[in-house]
Order: sequence, then C-alpha cells, then structure tokens
Amino acid sequence: MQTIRVETPSAKYDVFAGSGLLETLAPRIERAVGRLPRRVFVLTSPEIWALWSGAFLRSFAEPPLVLFLEPGEEHKTMKSVERLTREMVRAGGDRGSFLIAFGGGIVGDVGGFVAAVFMRGIEYVQVPTTFLAQVDSSVGGKVGVNLPEGKNLVGNFLQPRAVFADIGVLGTLPDRELRAGLMESVKAGIIRDRALVRFMEEHADAVLEREPKALERVIAASIRMKANVVRRDEREGGLRMILNFGHTVGHALEQATRYKAMLHGEAVAWGMVAALAVARRRGTITGAQMERMEKLIYRYGPLPKLRVSAGRVLAATGSDKKNVGGVRRFVLPVGIGDARVVEDVTPAEIDAAVKYMLGRQGVGSRE
Amino acid sequence: MQTIRVETPSAKYDVFAGSGLLETLAPRIERAVGRLPRRVFVLTSPEIWALWSGAFLRSFAEPPLVLFLEPGEEHKTMKSVERLTREMVRAGGDRGSFLIAFGGGIVGDVGGFVAAVFMRGIEYVQVPTTFLAQVDSSVGGKVGVNLPEGKNLVGNFLQPRAVFADIGVLGTLPDRELRAGLMESVKAGIIRDRALVRFMEEHADAVLEREPKALERVIAASIRMKANVVRRDEREGGLRMILNFGHTVGHALEQATRYKAMLHGEAVAWGMVAALAVARRRGTITGAQMERMEKLIYRYGPLPKLRVSAGRVLAATGSDKKNVGGVRRFVLPVGIGDARVVEDVTPAEIDAAVKYMLGRQGVGSRE
Repeated sequence: MQTIRVETPSAKYDVFAGSGLLETLAPRIERAVGRLPRRVFVLTSPEIWALWSGAFLRSFAEPPLVLFLEPGEEHKTMKSVERLTREMVRAGGDRGSFLIAFGGGIVGDVGGFVAAVFMRGIEYVQVPTTFLAQVDSSVGGKVGVNLPEGKNLVGNFLQPRAVFADIGVLGTLPDRELRAGLMESVKAGIIRDRALVRFMEEHADAVLEREPKALERVIAASIRMKANVVRRDEREGGLRMILNFGHTVGHALEQATRYKAMLHGEAVAWGMVAALAVARRRGTITGAQMERMEKLIYRYGPLPKLRVSAGRVLAATGSDKKNVGGVRRFVLPVGIGDARVVEDVTPAEIDAAVKYMLGRQGVGSRE
Repeated sequence: MQTIRVETPSAKYDVFAGSGLLETLAPRIERAVGRLPRRVFVLTSPEIWALWSGAFLRSFAEPPLVLFLEPGEEHKTMKSVERLTREMVRAGGDRGSFLIAFGGGIVGDVGGFVAAVFMRGIEYVQVPTTFLAQVDSSVGGKVGVNLPEGKNLVGNFLQPRAVFADIGVLGTLPDRELRAGLMESVKAGIIRDRALVRFMEEHADAVLEREPKALERVIAASIRMKANVVRRDEREGGLRMILNFGHTVGHALEQATRYKAMLHGEAVAWGMVAALAVARRRGTITGAQMERMEKLIYRYGPLPKLRVSAGRVLAATGSDKKNVGGVRRFVLPVGIGDARVVEDVTPAEIDAAVKYMLGRQGVGSRE
C-alpha cells in the first residue's frame, strides 16, 4: 500500500492506494476521522453494491445507511442532490452525519457535493471504484453536478477526510473503462512526470493486464502528481489549470456528442492529441516528442471514432467553462513532463488542431 | 454611516450601514472587490426591483443582468437554484462573474447559495433590503435553501465580499416586517449587549418610527454583535450557537404552522419567550429580569396569535436541525446581556416552557 499526503490550505488528508482496503474500511475511516461518526451514509450505484457490498460491510459493526445513485451522467443533477439530501433528512441525518462516496467519478462528484451542502456541509470520504476516479476525481476536492447547459456547472470545493483507492475493486472494471482511466495517468506523465511516461511505455502490457504492482505504481504516481498540484493551488487560480491538459477540446467533444459517444478519458485522450498539435505548431515540443506522446496515448487506446464535424467541435469550445471571460485557454506541453497554460490560442490554431485530431482517427481509433 | 469589520478564518469584509448607499453602489463594490467584475448579475425580487431599480442602477455604467426570485419561502428551493444557475450560464456567466443579492433574507440566502455553487463558487455582495436581512442574514455567511422536510437543510458557508445595508430602503418596509426584524436586535441585546437592550427600551418610539439615527444605532449594534460572534466561530462549532437563542422553539413554531402563520422574527420572539421560561426555571435569570426582557419583546410586538397545540410544537422540536444527534439544545440567557448553550433540556422542561408561551398570548399577541 502507498500513502499519498494531500495538503491544501483548507484541509490535509491521506490517499491510500493498495489492495484489501475495502474489507478493512471501518477502522481505517475511524483512524482518519478520529472518532466513529454517529450516522454513516454510503452513496453507491446498484451495480457496485451488488458486486462489493459483502466486502464493504465486513468491517462495519453497524451497517451504514445505503443511498443509491443510478449510473450515468444523466443522473449527475441537482434533482439527484435534492432527492439524496431529502432521503438523508428522512433517515435522521444531521450535521454530525458522515458520508462515504463508494463508486465511480459520478458517485464521487455527486456524493462530495451532497456532503458539501447537506446541512451546510458534513464530512465525507471517497472510496473510488474506477481507475479514473482513483487517480483523478477523488483527489482535489472538486465536487458538483451538471446542468443541461454543460458539465460541472454547479458545485463546490470540499476535500474529503481520506481517500481509499482499493486496487482489488478494479478487477471487475470493464477493459474500456480501465483504458479510458489510464489516459489520466498518461496526462499526469506528460504534464508533470517524465518517469511515469517512461514506466507506462515500458510496462504497458503489465498495466493493461492489471498486474497489481504495476497498477499500484501508476495509480500512486498519478495521485502524487495531482496532490502536488492541488497542494499548491487548491482553487484553480493558476497551476492547477495544467490538470486541464486535453480538456479544452476534450470537453468540446463530449458536448458535441452529448456525452454519449465516448468516456471522459477517451475524450481527454483525443483532446490531448489536439493540444499536442497546437504545441507542435508553436514549437514547445519537437516532432519526435510529439510522436512519442501520441504513440503512448494510442498504446492505451484504442480510442473511439469521432463521428462529429470540426465545426461542431469548434463551436463547443466557445462555451467551455475553462474559458474565463471568453479567452481560449489551452494547456500546452513543454517537452515531456512539463506544461504551461496559454491564453492566446487563436480560433485558427484550434481549427488546425481539431482537423489534425480528426485526421488521426485511422491511427488512434477503433472501428 | 457606520462600518463594521467582519473577520472570519475564511474571509474579511466590511458591512456598511447608513443612508444613500444604494445610489452609490457601483463604486463602492469596486472599492470592496478591488476591480470591476467582468459580468455582474443582480438577484432581486420583482417588488424590490419595481421600487428601487432607479436608485440601484444610478451608479452603474453598464447595467447588471437582472435575475428574479419570486418572494416567499416556497421559492427558496433547489429548483430555484437550478433555474437561476441555468439562466446565468445562458447569459454568458462564468467563473469571473459576480453576483449582487439585492433583497430580503430569502434573496440573500438563495443568492449566496447560488454564488457558492455556480461554477463551484463566484464572488458576491449582499445588499439587504429588510431590517431582518440587514442585521441578521446578510452577516455570517450562512447561505442555502429549504427542503420539503425543513428549512435551510441544504446550503453552504460563503462570506460576501461586502454588505451594504441602506437604511433608506427600509422606508418602504411594511410595519409588521420591521417589527419582526427588530426581534433580532432584541435577541442581540439579550444574549450579548446590555447597552443595546437599554437603548431599545428607552428609544422604542424613535426606532419604530424609523428615525434614521435611532435605526442606524440599532442596526450597527446588532451587526457588530453578530460579527463578533462569527469572527470567533465561523462554522458554528460553539459560540455561534448562542445566535440561536429563541430558535429551538421558534423553528418548531414555524414548522408546526408550515411557515405560513408568522414571520421568522415573530416565531423567534415567541421562541425567546419559551427560552426565558426555561431559563427562569433553571434560575439563570431572576423574575425581574425575565419580566423586563419579556416586556421588551412585547414592546416591539404585537406578536401573532399561536393557533397551534403544545403537542405539535413539541413534536416539531424533535426534528429541529439544531439538535445534533438528538440532543435538545437550548440557548438560555444568563442575566441580561449574556447567554449559554445547554444540551440537557428535558422534554418536561420544553413542555412547561411551550405551555407558558402559549399562555402569554393574551399579553404579547395581537388578534
């Protein structure tokens, strides 16, 4: 097991990554929180609960109250938050209650937001069950829901008291989800960790076959990278924006395809390809570096075909939340293992990058 | 004009109380925020806007985008938050946007919550237009909405960048609302400010006739009291709970009458009477002190008749949000100008206090 310390101005907590965490959760939470919470709720999805409730409940003397969230972005809504908080009130929840978000990124985002607003805020821990949630959404304290107008438009910042990333739970994860999640690790390596890039190049087979040691290495490195960034910039004033590498075009792809055609990690992967194209034109990476990074992205693919026009993707970038005041903000890699945020990317540059990306489908995508 | 500094671990800001603030709002906001916000929204009610939009808009070079919230607790909902955030997105709102909550307590609570969650949080100022909102809800950073199960069950803590309490705006406030609001000042005096109690006893006529100097004195003292408490306990861990004097039974009355029979301040006034009865039985106040404080409460009445049974009120206290873990928490005055929180008030004591309160209707209420 590896322990990664996350420190932000508003909170300090540990992320634990390893095997066998689920079966020993209750004492671990007690240790992290310092006392046994009075009333414990667990928010999870029916699928996860069907697979893992036995292991989850093993260490609890009194079973937590189970709240369910159906899977899918269409349930990441204000309506779900209202329903869940109402259920908590009716079950006797109060300010001393405690929430465990046990599931993928959507359960984590909704659960964290419920914790942030229920009775003006209660404490919670994350127990992420997908690779993506383990390396990305459970660290950093960004919580929230979607509006019909776009993703994550309503939310808050609330750090959990601890995160328990159990690698054993990944055993039941579909292969496509694992690969999509690994794109966040590819991202972590490209923007901040050259050694991780090399490890992922050299051990791709072991990682994709879910060899525990290899997975633990990749997960811990990814979390450590994010923790370092979040520690220095909790509320996304500056540095934290580099975590959005691949997200400008990635979000546009998700919006243009109504969040149905691809997984988030897959959209980010294509977005990284587009960002590499911008970086190459500006000369912040060499042709050889670009080739190596693209190859790494495709190695953890294949990526889905992009059945969308350049025009629609471009239009969607204009409404991207990351563009404060209408600026087209882009994260561009500088070599391998470093990145910077630029604000002056022109529509023409984005146009060329999107067209490059669409042209790479023969190389990087599956049918 | 008086300026009251509010300092909490999470923010420092000023509350300005005086006349003529509304007509000079834009430069005042700029001074408080340090720059002209890019896109400014104002959340208000149709009534307030009809009366005061002229004065409000006078100092803005570019008029803010106006969002409306219909008056009434029934609109203090998650649904309103969703609608408002969606309108803001569609109007081009982003993370750099700024919100002015211009209205009574409900506009302030909903507006503050919208600011807390829109794009995970934007900056805002409060421009409270009722006496109650000026002395109470605009200071302290408690924001949120109701659920069908109870008041303020979903929310957050977010301090505004400044509060502008314009006394001139109170000129159009209905008399009953002014009197209900003044109950918060009575509360402030009883729990923390003996001099304010004396001033309110001696200048009741001037205050109730809205003599500006008298109002400014009461408003500033009330805000100062609350600011001092919030500074020492932002998130209601201990001291801040004394602000809930009158609220245990007050909330129960509101719930038992479904928030329709009386204003919040009126419910708190009756709740103070009940709390005085508990305090008297426990001997933390003398009979003479109780009489003096009750007289002050009724002086700023009359209070509405309580058409509710003792049983229903008692049942409602059991579901009070303030009762962490089922403890019956009560704020009891200790003499005049001091108070303490107790957690061991028995159902029998509450029963006696509620019955005492119901029996005082001949003295304290109007028909």
